[in-house]
Amino acid sequence: MPKYHDRLDAVLRALADPTRRAIVERLAISPAVVSELAAPFSMALPSLLQHVRVLEDARVVTSQKVGRVRTVSLRPGSLDVLHLWLGEQRTPAEHQADRLGIHLVRTTTKET
Amino acid sequence: MPKYHDRLDAVLRALADPTRRAIVERLAISPAVVSELAAPFSMALPSLLQHVRVLEDARVVTSQKVGRVRTVSLRPGSLDVLHLWLGEQRTPAEHQADRLGIHLVRTTTKET
Repeated sequence: MPKYHDRLDAVLRALADPTRRAIVERLAISPAVVSELAAPFSMALPSLLQHVRVLEDARVVTSQKVGRVRTVSLRPGSLDVLHLWLGEQRTPAEHQADRLGIHLVRTTTKET
Repeated sequence: MPKYHDRLDAVLRALADPTRRAIVERLAISPAVVSELAAPFSMALPSLLQHVRVLEDARVVTSQKVGRVRTVSLRPGSLDVLHLWLGEQRTPAEHQADRLGIHLVRTTTKET
């Protein structure tokens, strides 16, 4: 699955920077215009836009320009590739704990 | 939570490299000695050990040397910090889909 690994690589490289993670955290609440995104950072606008560009290239966010205002949104499901990879890295002991958890949820649900 | 953010930063920086991800993928199956870890890579042993060191510093893996043999293991729960962060980045629409999913699981379980 070379496409999956390329996606994963792009997403992880994008998220390995704390400023870009802060942008993602802000966008998880709602889409935002660039000036709103820039507000919490003491950073020149071109530097901020460069971070947005990296997130856009990694397909984590998407942006739309209407007139002079650019609105940035989190792309729904864009982090799923990382979720998937993390799930695959669970050790046999963790898998066993997962199965126990599922069993307990089922038992508890049936009893109520 | 500065400690949480430091952990997250270390884990994401460690995983942003494809060789280190491949090491994690191998260790998810079982612990391995360094020579086993090195086998799939056309890489000098010191370079491989440097990648292991980064994973160790990020507390993703742990290693133990007995005599001349170093065994590397995935640290259980070491990627939980990333799981947690990913969960927090779900958009309102994705949260709604989660709730629907939970409702469906409960309904289906009750009906069987």
